[in-house]
Amino acid sequence: MTQRIPIVENILSANDRLAEENRARIESAGVFSVNLMASPGAGKTSIIEQTLSRLADKLRVAVVDGDIATSLDADRAAAAGAQASIQINTGGECHLDAVMLQGALNQLDLSKFDLLIVENVGNLVCPADFRLGTHKSVLIASTPEGDDKPYKYPGMYRGVDALVVNKIDLLPYLDFKMDYFQRGVEALNPGVVTFPVSCRTGEGLDAWTNWLAQNVKR
Amino acid sequence: MTQRIPIVENILSANDRLAEENRARIESAGVFSVNLMASPGAGKTSIIEQTLSRLADKLRVAVVDGDIATSLDADRAAAAGAQASIQINTGGECHLDAVMLQGALNQLDLSKFDLLIVENVGNLVCPADFRLGTHKSVLIASTPEGDDKPYKYPGMYRGVDALVVNKIDLLPYLDFKMDYFQRGVEALNPGVVTFPVSCRTGEGLDAWTNWLAQNVKR
Repeated sequence: MTQRIPIVENILSANDRLAEENRARIESAGVFSVNLMASPGAGKTSIIEQTLSRLADKLRVAVVDGDIATSLDADRAAAAGAQASIQINTGGECHLDAVMLQGALNQLDLSKFDLLIVENVGNLVCPADFRLGTHKSVLIASTPEGDDKPYKYPGMYRGVDALVVNKIDLLPYLDFKMDYFQRGVEALNPGVVTFPVSCRTGEGLDAWTNWLAQNVKR
Repeated sequence: MTQRIPIVENILSANDRLAEENRARIESAGVFSVNLMASPGAGKTSIIEQTLSRLADKLRVAVVDGDIATSLDADRAAAAGAQASIQINTGGECHLDAVMLQGALNQLDLSKFDLLIVENVGNLVCPADFRLGTHKSVLIASTPEGDDKPYKYPGMYRGVDALVVNKIDLLPYLDFKMDYFQRGVEALNPGVVTFPVSCRTGEGLDAWTNWLAQNVKR
């Protein structure tokens, strides 16, 4: 008989242990943290810019940006008022993991911040499998992606604590049935808090940033 | 001294060998094959539907749909006129690989087809690393994803043989600078054949389907 070696399981447990360490570190500094996940182009960076424009005068915000290449996102976060902005270039990896976040935390004095926003790599699959240690996982969906995405990417929709539905200003130009989308979401993640927003018109963004601010311990 | 064991390299070479077998099999049947890759929601399935509506009376088309869950895409391809439509559920995997395509080819009598369209899992990162054995790799970009995607996902943009830019009907409602986008594409993949299209208005789709049809050996 051959023995099956559970390599994937071990890697995930190692990641989970490190995620717990990250969480303890963030927690003990009194920082509230979110992990923003989305498809490429759903608007993670735009949401962060809009969030900073609403919160940067009230809260001290650090942003950690995960990307395969470039520092475009960290540059945008810094320009939008993040008091610290750190770029993680994953070197081709399709997701952030707890080790990468640990590396970024090593560059931050967490005691100087209230809110930590982690922008994951644009990907609706792999990031769902790697806990980072943040308090809340947030999925940013986008109306032009289509209303069938909960059905097709159940792992991501199932695992998040909040859902932002971006680009609602485009609804008049799309065949996006909000009922069908929401039925899919509800089946996977009943009662998940949902924020329909538009970064172009500003609609809905106050509700989203209020939710973030209410989660910050003062 | 410890020895570094190149596991990833070996997995990729095994995949490449199998991709070559798939290619030989497709080639000897006289079939032209494409691997469609894109972000979730860029419009792969809609492009396939539009392609079938233009080609299904001229060419015998088989569609292989890769998805994490559901058979929604294969159902849509069948409804749109594909003469064979096979769903690969990857069981959570974020890309297709040559083994999965081999499994699908085992279900097809290739001698009965002219064109094989493979729809990869929606993901701008991982599918770029796994050759399937198809003749051409095609990236479907989408204007609402934003004009910075070539800069942020260089691996995908660099490796494709053709680029479809979908949802150009939305350009009036977006901050998408086509010049900036195209400069990024050109830097990574000079002269790559590009088809700006809209599945809503039909614009540009004839040029795309003509390119496919011209590649089919008759």
